[in-house]
Amino acid sequence: MCDSFFRNQTVPAQTKIAMLILDGLGGLPLETGGKTELETAHTPNLDALAARSTLGLTQPAGPGITVGSGPGHLALFGYDPIENEIGRGVLEALGVDFEIGADDVAARGNFCTIDDQGLLIDRRAGRLPTEESIKLVNLLRTIQIDGVDLFIEPVKEHRFAFILRARDFGADLTDSDPLSTGVAPLRVKAHNAGSEKTAAAINEFIDRARLLLAEHSPANMILLRGFAKFPTLPTFREIYHLNAAAIAVNGMYRGVARLAGMKVLPVDGTTLADEFDTLEKYWQSYDFFYLHYKKTDTCGESGDFSGKVKAIEEFDTFLPRLLSLRPDVVIVGGDHSSPAVLRSHSWHPVPLLLFAATCRPDGSTEFCERACARGSLGVIPATQVMPLALAHAGRLSKYGA
Amino acid sequence: MCDSFFRNQTVPAQTKIAMLILDGLGGLPLETGGKTELETAHTPNLDALAARSTLGLTQPAGPGITVGSGPGHLALFGYDPIENEIGRGVLEALGVDFEIGADDVAARGNFCTIDDQGLLIDRRAGRLPTEESIKLVNLLRTIQIDGVDLFIEPVKEHRFAFILRARDFGADLTDSDPLSTGVAPLRVKAHNAGSEKTAAAINEFIDRARLLLAEHSPANMILLRGFAKFPTLPTFREIYHLNAAAIAVNGMYRGVARLAGMKVLPVDGTTLADEFDTLEKYWQSYDFFYLHYKKTDTCGESGDFSGKVKAIEEFDTFLPRLLSLRPDVVIVGGDHSSPAVLRSHSWHPVPLLLFAATCRPDGSTEFCERACARGSLGVIPATQVMPLALAHAGRLSKYGA
Repeated sequence: MCDSFFRNQTVPAQTKIAMLILDGLGGLPLETGGKTELETAHTPNLDALAARSTLGLTQPAGPGITVGSGPGHLALFGYDPIENEIGRGVLEALGVDFEIGADDVAARGNFCTIDDQGLLIDRRAGRLPTEESIKLVNLLRTIQIDGVDLFIEPVKEHRFAFILRARDFGADLTDSDPLSTGVAPLRVKAHNAGSEKTAAAINEFIDRARLLLAEHSPANMILLRGFAKFPTLPTFREIYHLNAAAIAVNGMYRGVARLAGMKVLPVDGTTLADEFDTLEKYWQSYDFFYLHYKKTDTCGESGDFSGKVKAIEEFDTFLPRLLSLRPDVVIVGGDHSSPAVLRSHSWHPVPLLLFAATCRPDGSTEFCERACARGSLGVIPATQVMPLALAHAGRLSKYGA
Repeated sequence: MCDSFFRNQTVPAQTKIAMLILDGLGGLPLETGGKTELETAHTPNLDALAARSTLGLTQPAGPGITVGSGPGHLALFGYDPIENEIGRGVLEALGVDFEIGADDVAARGNFCTIDDQGLLIDRRAGRLPTEESIKLVNLLRTIQIDGVDLFIEPVKEHRFAFILRARDFGADLTDSDPLSTGVAPLRVKAHNAGSEKTAAAINEFIDRARLLLAEHSPANMILLRGFAKFPTLPTFREIYHLNAAAIAVNGMYRGVARLAGMKVLPVDGTTLADEFDTLEKYWQSYDFFYLHYKKTDTCGESGDFSGKVKAIEEFDTFLPRLLSLRPDVVIVGGDHSSPAVLRSHSWHPVPLLLFAATCRPDGSTEFCERACARGSLGVIPATQVMPLALAHAGRLSKYGA
């Protein structure tokens, strides 16, 4: 996306765009010649909408590239996911609604278990209950390091967000997490001179944490990884003139949406029904809605083919609630594929449906990988989804005479 | 397009390429599930050619981007339409065959009507007859401003081209046309220091024009907009080694062709028959022909679905005249879509047909949006049309050993 181009071309309009993202939507058949999760699912509402829509496949970051949810979502929001790398640490901090800023170095933190020799036994401290974790986070908060401010925020179970605030401290650092057991946690090292002070402060913090936690086994040590600074992205309002809102239950997705300048709406609960309640409640107040559905990815990553099928079917039943709000443009897609047969994210292009009164329907009667592969949008970079949505919403002016 | 790459790869050949552009070709059905203008039209000659051709869809400037005819044509000619922005003023000057050069600042001019308070009543002076307009242009030509040369050229009805010639005068200027009535025409302002002198000279011209025209109501004032300097593009001869000719009735299309270094051929009349007469007359003298057909866009923009269908059918009847000349490569396409249902240009990809002895036919039996969406060229940037045409014309050498 060329920011400056879209800044000049977007115009305000009284139209609404809904972007529904089924995390890890794309799939694979269990065996050659079989059906994918989406092809197996009974989805009468998506299929009916497909008949009035244009279909295609999206590539989050290019052919063959498997992405995490961070870059997958950035691409769907129109930001080049390679140029705009977001560190895991920043996503973790955003996910717990921490107001991260330009002076912050963030990391993903874990409580872990080490033995008498200091070697890792359990990288997740037995998935410490969240209540326990909160107490230990409060303990860590007593640590003070000269010249920096520290913020520790509990996440869930053994996880926490770590933020070091200090002007002009670099974040080009190695992880302390060795990603395996039987070895000691690593010292954090700086990749460049600008990050030396940061490495020193963080290693001091880790040493003090180890002393403080010594008697708290299984959570007797911490691991830090994914050090990163806050990237500054132009917001949806700046680039697209969109008053955008996000509906997501999981922190990371709320965090990416906040990065794009979206208002993250409160969801009273964690179910898809709760998310659609929020959508309906706030429908009049925004002109772009991003709604995130996690279960498809969770099932894909755990190899649960039929669970993913059921998740897609559950999603399908909610589609009429959106359509009755009469959105002008509907996008249904995914941030990446997560085929159950691979038990992981994958590089396969992701099904995309674009509905608007102005679209040229493909004549498909089903929303699935095969129909999308024949769709007239073709196989497109995910970064092209927003320009298409804006065009169909009457929000892009004519270029040139 | 990478100029330098094609400069090195193109080779001369004894082959001829014909590029037939139906302005605003792409369309939409009147209602969901219906047929587009092109799908509705009875086009036996295009359909027969389609069966021997490769089909696809072109995007002039990217997904979702609606372009004017200027950038739409630049893309078809192989120039990046975003990198090579052409101001409206330059197009207007080119359209009246004005030999615009590097020292010129051009604008689109209108006669208009203001009331006693100087407020705009009619931005087009009642669409002043061309004969009247020419007299008033001669009046404007008497105005002299120190340090600059002025050229005023009548266009049609209330319109004229305005050219200010002075070395190193910038053209980064606001319009005097407020684009609405009930307000006074605006003073022209410079966006940068290099354009201050230009703004001063132009405002002086506007003041003097108002005095001169005071008694000539409804044409008692002028409006200027789209100030621009002449972009320099490498020519078809330089990049492609093509001796290129253009056949177009409307000034703007002749202007863009001239910008690309094409010889603009005389057309004795304004009908498509007249254009094909020119094509036949000059067939032996050039190896690339761009032929422009305006009616499809005119009907699209005025919401005349059946008129656009008839225009396409009229075009179809002329195709045999081209084919009997035995061109080596035939391109049939459009500079953008203009669906009658939208009454405007649109972002929808544009049908493209590429015929050559060396093409792989898709097996389509119809030239229309749906067949093109299934075409084996895929959905491609319009800038890729010229490289494909050159290849099929045997005019691109092998890259590398």
